[in-house]
Amino acid sequence: MKPAIPKVTVQRLPVYLRCLEDLPAGQASVSSDELAAMAGVNAAKVRKDLSYLGSYGVRGVGYDVARLVLQIGLELGLERDWAVVIIGVGNLGRALANYEGFGERRFRVVGLFDIDPGKVGQAVDGLVVEPMSRLAAAVVERGARIGIVTTPASAAQHVADQLTAAGVRSILNFAPIVIKPQDGIDIRRVDLSTELQVLSFYLHRNGE
Amino acid sequence: MKPAIPKVTVQRLPVYLRCLEDLPAGQASVSSDELAAMAGVNAAKVRKDLSYLGSYGVRGVGYDVARLVLQIGLELGLERDWAVVIIGVGNLGRALANYEGFGERRFRVVGLFDIDPGKVGQAVDGLVVEPMSRLAAAVVERGARIGIVTTPASAAQHVADQLTAAGVRSILNFAPIVIKPQDGIDIRRVDLSTELQVLSFYLHRNGE
Repeated sequence: MKPAIPKVTVQRLPVYLRCLEDLPAGQASVSSDELAAMAGVNAAKVRKDLSYLGSYGVRGVGYDVARLVLQIGLELGLERDWAVVIIGVGNLGRALANYEGFGERRFRVVGLFDIDPGKVGQAVDGLVVEPMSRLAAAVVERGARIGIVTTPASAAQHVADQLTAAGVRSILNFAPIVIKPQDGIDIRRVDLSTELQVLSFYLHRNGE
Repeated sequence: MKPAIPKVTVQRLPVYLRCLEDLPAGQASVSSDELAAMAGVNAAKVRKDLSYLGSYGVRGVGYDVARLVLQIGLELGLERDWAVVIIGVGNLGRALANYEGFGERRFRVVGLFDIDPGKVGQAVDGLVVEPMSRLAAAVVERGARIGIVTTPASAAQHVADQLTAAGVRSILNFAPIVIKPQDGIDIRRVDLSTELQVLSFYLHRNGE
């Protein structure tokens, strides 16, 4: 029985993983101070977070980079492929269908769906856009566990309900609206303006 | 002289703001517990973060929602427009040019630039794609303070240097690579796979 990892720690694990991968090639170990500076948290938090994975740095040496990358990846379930469907083939849907970062993490886009008959049949990054009527069967046939919603806000709830009915357990929502999850469904929302607001904070502080 | 707000707090302010806006219309006050649950942090952290803004909840009542929205917005510099240029007019660049969430926060896209002569001249969401040779003059003329990089990884560093030379102080990087900032330049990176990894963590834990 694994100990529970706090939600806030889970949210930081992908950030640590990216920081570790951003280290110069060949750097074998990293201190909690260095990782903390890269991730924008404090070093005590880094040590605490990593302790949940059973990972402890060596005093004066730090953490073994390769081992830590492996441990975080295992914890995040990245040692296997995850099949993903994308609903809403506008610019953002197309961008995500092509997004290199997904493949690196073994998130495999296995279906693109849209309600617009004008888009159905179009080829996008090796896939063909399918009608929503195909969604339920496709989720089952292709073992999709995650759905990405890139529809307009007005369609997002209905699409999420369709994904849930089809058997998808986790939904990533890019639509600018809160989707009400059904029981047992995990929904996360991405707001692309979050980081811009952090930038404007500093510009504002610096009197720009 | 305002007290310094810790970096980690700054990063949470946009999240709190979005949570406050997601509250049911008409809800006048919110407890730190409720806000904490929505934001995925603990309540003590919420109270501490908001105390940096000079905002303290009333015991048994909580925080005044409208006042808190205003305070966070002021702190993040959202009471004014920020002019933004986007470099790299692929699917992601187009998606961001159209992204409703930017306008809501008063981030105004004032220029789209691409190195590809085939894209220059195309109309995208009311703007016309311009060649890179126009960047420096456009940044000055239109008062752009923020640049968004949506180029392939191989071009990102060069583009960031061009933005910096043109007078942009803050860069949001969607390219899957670390950009080395010049002195005084603030760069933030967005990894669109972060939230997918949080979802895969829970799927993995639940034995999917």
